[in-house]
Amino acid sequence: MNSQTAPSLADVARHAGVSLSTASRALNDAYGVSAVTRARVLESASALDFVVSPDARRLASGTTGRVAVVVPHIERWFFGQMVSGIERVLSEADFDILLYHVDDAEDRREFLARLPARRKVDAVVVVAFPVGEAERERLELIGAKIIAAGGQSASYPYVCIDDVNAGRLAMDHLTSLGHRRIAMIAGSDPDQPGWPATPGRSRAYESALEALGVSPDPALVRDVDWNPVNAGKAMADILDAAGEPPTAVYAHGDELAFGVLHTLRHRGYRVPEDISVIGIDNHPLAELLDLTTVAQDVGEQGAAAARLVLQALGRAQAEPGAAPGVVAPVHLVERASTAPPRS
Amino acid sequence: MNSQTAPSLADVARHAGVSLSTASRALNDAYGVSAVTRARVLESASALDFVVSPDARRLASGTTGRVAVVVPHIERWFFGQMVSGIERVLSEADFDILLYHVDDAEDRREFLARLPARRKVDAVVVVAFPVGEAERERLELIGAKIIAAGGQSASYPYVCIDDVNAGRLAMDHLTSLGHRRIAMIAGSDPDQPGWPATPGRSRAYESALEALGVSPDPALVRDVDWNPVNAGKAMADILDAAGEPPTAVYAHGDELAFGVLHTLRHRGYRVPEDISVIGIDNHPLAELLDLTTVAQDVGEQGAAAARLVLQALGRAQAEPGAAPGVVAPVHLVERASTAPPRS
Repeated sequence: MNSQTAPSLADVARHAGVSLSTASRALNDAYGVSAVTRARVLESASALDFVVSPDARRLASGTTGRVAVVVPHIERWFFGQMVSGIERVLSEADFDILLYHVDDAEDRREFLARLPARRKVDAVVVVAFPVGEAERERLELIGAKIIAAGGQSASYPYVCIDDVNAGRLAMDHLTSLGHRRIAMIAGSDPDQPGWPATPGRSRAYESALEALGVSPDPALVRDVDWNPVNAGKAMADILDAAGEPPTAVYAHGDELAFGVLHTLRHRGYRVPEDISVIGIDNHPLAELLDLTTVAQDVGEQGAAAARLVLQALGRAQAEPGAAPGVVAPVHLVERASTAPPRS
Repeated sequence: MNSQTAPSLADVARHAGVSLSTASRALNDAYGVSAVTRARVLESASALDFVVSPDARRLASGTTGRVAVVVPHIERWFFGQMVSGIERVLSEADFDILLYHVDDAEDRREFLARLPARRKVDAVVVVAFPVGEAERERLELIGAKIIAAGGQSASYPYVCIDDVNAGRLAMDHLTSLGHRRIAMIAGSDPDQPGWPATPGRSRAYESALEALGVSPDPALVRDVDWNPVNAGKAMADILDAAGEPPTAVYAHGDELAFGVLHTLRHRGYRVPEDISVIGIDNHPLAELLDLTTVAQDVGEQGAAAARLVLQALGRAQAEPGAAPGVVAPVHLVERASTAPPRS
């Protein structure tokens, strides 16, 4: 026994002169082992400095003590916050987090198809992407619970914000200031067609204008992936294409708004005197950039998703009469990037 | 067998009429099982839709296929980038990432002390915090390799930038523009005394001034934790306390510089006309804020750390004559936040 190798169960069994399965049963307090044999195995384990592997113990109990967290981006603010909140609650409950990054829809499908065969987790938290029916069934077949964080689903417990409501708060703020000519920078993910965040936030734009009898001007609307630089380019596009510039810009997220602010500053527009800007998120830098925004607490959404995991695994009690999902609150944070339009 | 419970090895053994250890050996292609018995077990496994657990397989091989990544912050840009880079390389090599968040020094010590007893990983990547000798020895005793990412260590392989060099590039840029009255916002972590980033970046400040025969003015230097809002307050402090404002500010990181830019704008100072600002990192928003900075590629550092893991586990070849560590390159990115001082 050198310091490089930990003693194995086989070493213990050999030392005690019993079979591997007897050694395993003895160490796991399973039935079918005499008291004398159990004592001998425990003595051998102690003599060899053998530590019962949690893997072995958990194989016996049929659980893994692990939860997979699957994210399309790790390095972006929203996902970091989410993972941080999930980790905080699950690690307190003594679960380990397996972190998986999946890229596009194909990658995700393949990952979720492979996961059951590997049978390594008790639950899967999917962050901000949809899970297809076939994947869901396959995961449920092996008893792994699924929780959706950052997106809604009828099929399994979820945590998300109400995107229509978040968008409405942003648009109501602009229209109540008197803005009518409002541009929209919509965030969309080419890898996630059909995910609700984008259509919900866009619908809010259309309904707010409709309610005022304003017909949306397609020259004022651009779809970009969630990248501030591309949002800045989209803003430049709008300024170039639209005859008259908008008096306000509604961005689907703060990081998109940062790109808009950059373009406006470079083009010589003052914010909010010439053009108002609003985002959604309350990104930590929004305060530093004086950005008015609709705030959501993403870390708390991660914690709520983790609590849904614990409930699904029977490790925590659900609120009586609780809905299958948690809709996290949002609220307007007024800063210096919005003001009434110049008359 | 209902859809809630996956069949266990015990179910397979019962179905095949063999002992648990025989079933295990048969499924793991281990010695001591006749071809007939093996075939019977495989048939039972197939009939029951039993999938061999990687845990079981790996227990037999003595490895876990898992690497722990331990970070003091998940939600901050640097750590998200790092984890993203580590995940990209290790998942390609079919390793799973166990993500652990540890708070302060005490929490870290406790985590590293507990980890060996749980024996769940083949390697541990510690991101940007030091590992004490006692913890290191305990981890090595159980054969888990340690890699340091985002910080240097003589005791085990590491990936980091040369902090003195990064600071020197920033200071040389300012002094070559003609700045002599330079403030420094130093980032320090109260939970990580003695970690090299802060002293290295501060030393660069002192040597650059010394080389010019300028004695550092304590009224121009503030230590803050890595928080943009606190950096902004420190900048306000400097403006209030120093008789004459500095002509330039050197921040240990871009997020600190963002806070500095905010305060300067609110106090009516123009950047760079009145005061130049430089950071370190090349944070994705640095471009949008026109911040001159010393760029590092943190995602690539994560990937390099993952490659050191693979080498340590014998899964990849080290470069012949390679040093135990990787010093990642940095370079100056000039943008519009720096200019010569007004004469």
